[in-house]
Amino acid sequence: MSSFGNIFRVTTYGESHCKSVGCIVDGCPPGLDLTEADIQPQLSRRRPGQLALSTPRNEKDRVQIQSGTENGHTLGSPIGMLVLNEDHRPKDYSETDLYPRPSHADYTYIQKYGVKSASGGGRSSARETIGRVAAGAIAEKVLQKANNVEIVAFVSSIGGVLMNRDPRDAKFQELLNTITREQVDDVGPVRCPDASVREQMVKEIEKYRDAKDSIGGVVTCVIRNCPVGLGEPCFDKLEATLAHAMMSLPATKGFEFGSGFLGTLMPGSAHNDAFYFSEAENRLRTKTNFSGGVQGGITNGENIYFSVAFKSAATISQEQPTASYDGKHGVLAAKGRHDPSVTPRAVPIVEAMAALVLVDQLLMQKAREYGASVVSK
Amino acid sequence: MSSFGNIFRVTTYGESHCKSVGCIVDGCPPGLDLTEADIQPQLSRRRPGQLALSTPRNEKDRVQIQSGTENGHTLGSPIGMLVLNEDHRPKDYSETDLYPRPSHADYTYIQKYGVKSASGGGRSSARETIGRVAAGAIAEKVLQKANNVEIVAFVSSIGGVLMNRDPRDAKFQELLNTITREQVDDVGPVRCPDASVREQMVKEIEKYRDAKDSIGGVVTCVIRNCPVGLGEPCFDKLEATLAHAMMSLPATKGFEFGSGFLGTLMPGSAHNDAFYFSEAENRLRTKTNFSGGVQGGITNGENIYFSVAFKSAATISQEQPTASYDGKHGVLAAKGRHDPSVTPRAVPIVEAMAALVLVDQLLMQKAREYGASVVSK
Amino acid sequence: MSSFGNIFRVTTYGESHCKSVGCIVDGCPPGLDLTEADIQPQLSRRRPGQLALSTPRNEKDRVQIQSGTENGHTLGSPIGMLVLNEDHRPKDYSETDLYPRPSHADYTYIQKYGVKSASGGGRSSARETIGRVAAGAIAEKVLQKANNVEIVAFVSSIGGVLMNRDPRDAKFQELLNTITREQVDDVGPVRCPDASVREQMVKEIEKYRDAKDSIGGVVTCVIRNCPVGLGEPCFDKLEATLAHAMMSLPATKGFEFGSGFLGTLMPGSAHNDAFYFSEAENRLRTKTNFSGGVQGGITNGENIYFSVAFKSAATISQEQPTASYDGKHGVLAAKGRHDPSVTPRAVPIVEAMAALVLVDQLLMQKAREYGASVVSK
Amino acid sequence: MSSFGNIFRVTTYGESHCKSVGCIVDGCPPGLDLTEADIQPQLSRRRPGQLALSTPRNEKDRVQIQSGTENGHTLGSPIGMLVLNEDHRPKDYSETDLYPRPSHADYTYIQKYGVKSASGGGRSSARETIGRVAAGAIAEKVLQKANNVEIVAFVSSIGGVLMNRDPRDAKFQELLNTITREQVDDVGPVRCPDASVREQMVKEIEKYRDAKDSIGGVVTCVIRNCPVGLGEPCFDKLEATLAHAMMSLPATKGFEFGSGFLGTLMPGSAHNDAFYFSEAENRLRTKTNFSGGVQGGITNGENIYFSVAFKSAATISQEQPTASYDGKHGVLAAKGRHDPSVTPRAVPIVEAMAALVLVDQLLMQKAREYGASVVSK
Repeated sequence: MSSFGNIFRVTTYGESHCKSVGCIVDGCPPGLDLTEADIQPQLSRRRPGQLALSTPRNEKDRVQIQSGTENGHTLGSPIGMLVLNEDHRPKDYSETDLYPRPSHADYTYIQKYGVKSASGGGRSSARETIGRVAAGAIAEKVLQKANNVEIVAFVSSIGGVLMNRDPRDAKFQELLNTITREQVDDVGPVRCPDASVREQMVKEIEKYRDAKDSIGGVVTCVIRNCPVGLGEPCFDKLEATLAHAMMSLPATKGFEFGSGFLGTLMPGSAHNDAFYFSEAENRLRTKTNFSGGVQGGITNGENIYFSVAFKSAATISQEQPTASYDGKHGVLAAKGRHDPSVTPRAVPIVEAMAALVLVDQLLMQKAREYGASVVSK
Repeated sequence: MSSFGNIFRVTTYGESHCKSVGCIVDGCPPGLDLTEADIQPQLSRRRPGQLALSTPRNEKDRVQIQSGTENGHTLGSPIGMLVLNEDHRPKDYSETDLYPRPSHADYTYIQKYGVKSASGGGRSSARETIGRVAAGAIAEKVLQKANNVEIVAFVSSIGGVLMNRDPRDAKFQELLNTITREQVDDVGPVRCPDASVREQMVKEIEKYRDAKDSIGGVVTCVIRNCPVGLGEPCFDKLEATLAHAMMSLPATKGFEFGSGFLGTLMPGSAHNDAFYFSEAENRLRTKTNFSGGVQGGITNGENIYFSVAFKSAATISQEQPTASYDGKHGVLAAKGRHDPSVTPRAVPIVEAMAALVLVDQLLMQKAREYGASVVSK
Repeated sequence: MSSFGNIFRVTTYGESHCKSVGCIVDGCPPGLDLTEADIQPQLSRRRPGQLALSTPRNEKDRVQIQSGTENGHTLGSPIGMLVLNEDHRPKDYSETDLYPRPSHADYTYIQKYGVKSASGGGRSSARETIGRVAAGAIAEKVLQKANNVEIVAFVSSIGGVLMNRDPRDAKFQELLNTITREQVDDVGPVRCPDASVREQMVKEIEKYRDAKDSIGGVVTCVIRNCPVGLGEPCFDKLEATLAHAMMSLPATKGFEFGSGFLGTLMPGSAHNDAFYFSEAENRLRTKTNFSGGVQGGITNGENIYFSVAFKSAATISQEQPTASYDGKHGVLAAKGRHDPSVTPRAVPIVEAMAALVLVDQLLMQKAREYGASVVSK
Repeated sequence: MSSFGNIFRVTTYGESHCKSVGCIVDGCPPGLDLTEADIQPQLSRRRPGQLALSTPRNEKDRVQIQSGTENGHTLGSPIGMLVLNEDHRPKDYSETDLYPRPSHADYTYIQKYGVKSASGGGRSSARETIGRVAAGAIAEKVLQKANNVEIVAFVSSIGGVLMNRDPRDAKFQELLNTITREQVDDVGPVRCPDASVREQMVKEIEKYRDAKDSIGGVVTCVIRNCPVGLGEPCFDKLEATLAHAMMSLPATKGFEFGSGFLGTLMPGSAHNDAFYFSEAENRLRTKTNFSGGVQGGITNGENIYFSVAFKSAATISQEQPTASYDGKHGVLAAKGRHDPSVTPRAVPIVEAMAALVLVDQLLMQKAREYGASVVSK
């Protein structure tokens, strides 16, 4: 459904052709300084239109806080937020009246709901993610205040152009330790911090753009300074809720946590993360971090990192064979210009979902810690 | 926490050193013929000890239904089930009093809960999955009755030995169309249906066993005959809940759905699944199935398939450097024999979780369909 | 928190001094014809200002649907709705900066949240109920379409002026069988269908109004044509979820279901509802209905009826002794005119919450019935 | 369904004719000293058979902890508990094969689930409450450790014999301040602390027993030392979740919180609880407590008190006219001896549900307080 989280919970609404999209954030701690200016940056980072490489539609996406704050501080009550839909252009999609677009949600939405919407796939539109990003921006503020948690996502591959994200690679681990959101944006529209592949990525996107085609990619995300002890065994392990969050994003096809699929190739003797005592931090740490910062579903204080696979966008302007709802063969081509690679825009969305998972698990764990502290008296 | 599902919900309890492990299945439809004999087979398939390759501990794992059935039929009330813990052998783990085992949950459990349990990682034990498998067996029966749904998982890689699971490969797609659970078991303990790599897999496991080491692998799962329309946008897309379910299993590091990470390499023109009209079935189908049977988070009637990465088991009997809780360097080696590859045993567990996801989404969708049918009158 | 319901779920936001109040209705069936005109009537019925007896503030409360509908039909996606806050008048409440108002939520909100809001009690404001009523209006439409369900609430007492609502009284039972919402409104502002006490009720309200005081009352509600089988044992019995819903309304102090507290006085031989076979309806019915239409938490097809106690409004314009937050004794009097009896305005709110409970339980039960139908094949 | 609570959650299973009844308590803090001896007393208090006045069936109801503890301390993992069903006597109920018992759940269960169970009403059996009481005993221990919370319920009326529970009565308020569980039990089987009516209550029960009839009653409950700030606006106000909990108990017909229905008669000037500053406690308190310890759904630190109406038991041994499932008129009489008044046995059950509500809200609030503390830094 349209709610995510237990104690800190976001509920979203809106599709691409209605009055507004938005969300309600329930359970945000009171006393947080919060205005639209805290939320707008991430919304702007997810906007199409700001990058030469991507779609020219200029959605302004100005967030309006409706409730839950007074004089720039949160009250503890639900925070309603909305962003007006300004640029509908429903005409461009008229062929979908006859043909379900391949690998879009037109067909499944009509099968599930029995009604055809202007947007075709209703809530499968990328516009649905606005509410997530707005909520995530609030979650991030809480996490920063609580533990200086840092969440940074970046593009690690575009099509066949891959940066090295082998968890055994020292440079990759160092990147995870240091990469900042500013660095990710500074390097240009592909949002890949690896200079050795970045230009190739741009060319890869241009190649598919010129071919009226699209291409997928991978977003990798690191979370630093996460407190030890987050994650709720057995079904709500931290990596399970992160996987849920990420795989609920449009166009996702895969999720890797820590060593990921590579971890299936490494023997236990190499994959096990040996403990050592850090004098500096006065606590146990691990020499390697193939676990990805989580053991038994619970954070161990090391960096949390994971990757999310985004398939190529389904909307392409070249002609594709398809069949109409009533079974007639036909050909479909999207009109207008379309984003050849949505992966760079996914960066703030991945960060938002990561923040939503973490803040909920953080608050839950603090309830647990309180309980433990009083019963052992 | 320890509950999974909304309408059809399982809640589990138990760790490796308590009296019993078990679960409560809430929301099972009434009138289903159900006895222990329906549940035991999958429990036996997950048992260690039945395969020469795996650990010799012979846990009997006999399930006992406590409630919710009468005269071999379900009542609609919660089904309590339990399996006694018979073979504790807590002595073997005594070194964990001093040292947290690398890549086990000993350290994180103690950090989260503040107490040390005999099992070290408490609910991170594989024994916790017994309740899931018992519940999954019931879910499967409902799905079979409802739509003849078939769920078959198998091992697709052990360490570096991989069968071809490229979704573009016709033989792989044919395998997904036809593979049965019987075939998976008939081929021997590694549960890999691909004869060309099976022997190598056995050797791979033996190699790591002989080296007192362990090795990971991948389980691939296909779901056939799933009704169209399952999945709850936007946060509970079918692939999101499946990812949650799978990544909540012990030792999982990755999840791929449909084309998976390969899908990031394929341009939209190749990845889009073209529709055609199937005269035989009198409905739209897709020529390819890179979407993995789901579009926009909703099933489209094609095969659902996904893969789950299991890292190498953390418990190995060779010596490993580690640090004690209080920071002293030391060396730890697990006593006794240990399973060099848990991947084959994960097969029924993956099937169980898939069934739990599907049955919950199926019942939910039927509520939706009822609603749609009455309001449009 | 701010969500209610499982399959059909409303999430609300907003307090009295923010930009708007509103809600998201998730899980509404697709294909329902729905515009603002379907929702506005119940919102207008809950408005202060439309009755001579009540507060003169004229809040316009025009609902605006944001999403989830197209061309006057629901899409199955979440329905965002909002009502602008136009008449803040925050000045009148300035004394609350120093003194928590007696029996208001000023004190508890500051204790819970640690921040002081302009409204004092934040979400305890009656304005919070707007989102409930808007959502309830949609729920009602679904219920009407599904089974011609009728929900009618009315005032059964104002202060010491009580109509006869003894469940043993034939006239009362007949009233439950026949009362309509139109009749409730037609009889004037107190919304009491019993002509023998109505004028006294008006006088009771006027008496307390003239004394700068307030008075409580009881709202009774009947639900007719509810399908058999709704209610989810054991914790979500129908009467339990109704009690939850009603006691979550501001100013409620009690809930009676069926025979209510009177039922404690009647021996089993008198209270038991004897079954008989109704030829007309070809099903079992009960001769009496002290159970209130529910047995074992599950509806039996008889009228569901219950009563909700609303205490006198805490806001009165006479002077009251109180203490400031820092412990100084003082005197507080609300400025302006205030509603001497909120009970009549609670009528549509009670109806809304009843509808929200029922539609959720109805959809849930249809999932159950589907499950039962397929497993018994 | 069969789960209750969010952070501290109980899930129950079992009906009267299965192997065992039990529950899983998820989210209990780790480090709590806990053995069966902590749980058994409340289970024994709810047992039939220990009082001369009540049914002679001697169910032993010995609880067995299955998981979640080691060496007498909780681990933080789910606590599985069960009580064997020893005394089935299914024969006595055989007439229910033909006739649904009046005001039992036989009819509605068959309508909802489509299957007939030996117990008739399945989960509507009082035996279902065993899991609640076991879980409640654990919740109580946590509350005692956390804040020395005291929960004491008692019988305040049996049929027409009522003790004075007018909230304006000083003696009643004093009783709420001082009554202990020991005092409640010491006064004998009716569990009414008011000596002036106790003997009449016994006679009232005996009267209905001798008439082969049954009689209802009211249980009143007080919660002392509850921390300020518990309760989650707007839908999960403390009184709303308490109402949900209480009205989910078998045979309940009403719920009053604080002033209850009497509160509808009192003008605001009398009902408002004036604040004063308590030097002793260095905080604001209220002179009266008609609010029942909650304002705006949030606890204010005063005593929480409420009353629950239990109707007369439906099972009586005198003959009652009824109709068979297929519509034939008939006469039904319960065989054997039956409890003429279940109200005294409800006392520990009410306490258990109160504890489950409170512990969940307490842990939730501590998560809130943590959030507030970090964001305001």
